[in-house]
Amino acid sequence: MKNLNKWKLLQSRFVLNNKWCQVRQDEIELPSGQIIDDFFVCVRPNIALVFAATEQQELVFVRQYRHGAGEILLQLPGGSFNPAEESGKSAAARELAEETGYVAEEIWELATLYDNPVKDTNCIYLYLAKNVKLASQIQLDITEDVEVVLVPIAEVLLKIANREICVSGSIAAIFLGLDFLNKQQ
Amino acid sequence: MKNLNKWKLLQSRFVLNNKWCQVRQDEIELPSGQIIDDFFVCVRPNIALVFAATEQQELVFVRQYRHGAGEILLQLPGGSFNPAEESGKSAAARELAEETGYVAEEIWELATLYDNPVKDTNCIYLYLAKNVKLASQIQLDITEDVEVVLVPIAEVLLKIANREICVSGSIAAIFLGLDFLNKQQ
Repeated sequence: MKNLNKWKLLQSRFVLNNKWCQVRQDEIELPSGQIIDDFFVCVRPNIALVFAATEQQELVFVRQYRHGAGEILLQLPGGSFNPAEESGKSAAARELAEETGYVAEEIWELATLYDNPVKDTNCIYLYLAKNVKLASQIQLDITEDVEVVLVPIAEVLLKIANREICVSGSIAAIFLGLDFLNKQQ
Repeated sequence: MKNLNKWKLLQSRFVLNNKWCQVRQDEIELPSGQIIDDFFVCVRPNIALVFAATEQQELVFVRQYRHGAGEILLQLPGGSFNPAEESGKSAAARELAEETGYVAEEIWELATLYDNPVKDTNCIYLYLAKNVKLASQIQLDITEDVEVVLVPIAEVLLKIANREICVSGSIAAIFLGLDFLNKQQ
């Protein structure tokens, strides 16, 4: 294995720092000794995403407008959380209930991933819930207008192939969730 | 299907706009009529990623330091490209050759995904190359210090389970690539 070194952080300052968007400009020293004074990093909150299956073998999705992409997209339920206030597992259960009304009895960890480890600081935490039940009142943020969509597990890979599901975190969670369910059987 | 509406863009201005980092502050009108004047979007270049398999049934990975995460990570080869200058497919072949020295004879499209459709504008384009051969000189950018790692295809799912591979785009590409290879057999 080649000896790779981390970069040395010489200085760091926020060039954007408000409630919704934090961008850091870092001055770093490469292992070669060269100095770069304009490496930008987005400091973003961690995200919990949940692969939630009903007793009828359907997966619970949310369809909603996503402004970065400018498209209405189908994704697994989830959202950001503050690890100082709640665990990723609690956040997954909370987001599932708030966005879809489905309640999980038990939640398993699937994986902790990065979306963009070059430019972003945050992780996405993937969870799996089985036998979720519609038992809660949907509670949306003001910017959220959501359609809850149930997709039979048997059709979910087709929806990925058709590009009806096209967000990398959701796709990683779906494949990992299907693997998890297959191993339990 | 519920009738969901896109948000209306009222105004948009760059609050950060340099070569390496562009952040837009949008004023938008929600379908409810409510106006939000501080929705931030990162305008990022598209990324091409390649699932590249050798004749010996190994996948070609790159191991390198990623400053957003602050970790040395194993990912599929890839990088950003400008669609006005080259296709995603050409970019995938170019990045594979530059980062690893492996050359693809033919490249297939696997999928076009979003990493973060809420906060980022860009897509990641996933490609698959079979029977790649070590035939080119590695050409790295000054910030790149890369180890090329060959992983037998039979061991790649284990490396995801072990968290040795933990980036969502690479994981989505791996599952989609394995599916593609299975269907061809």
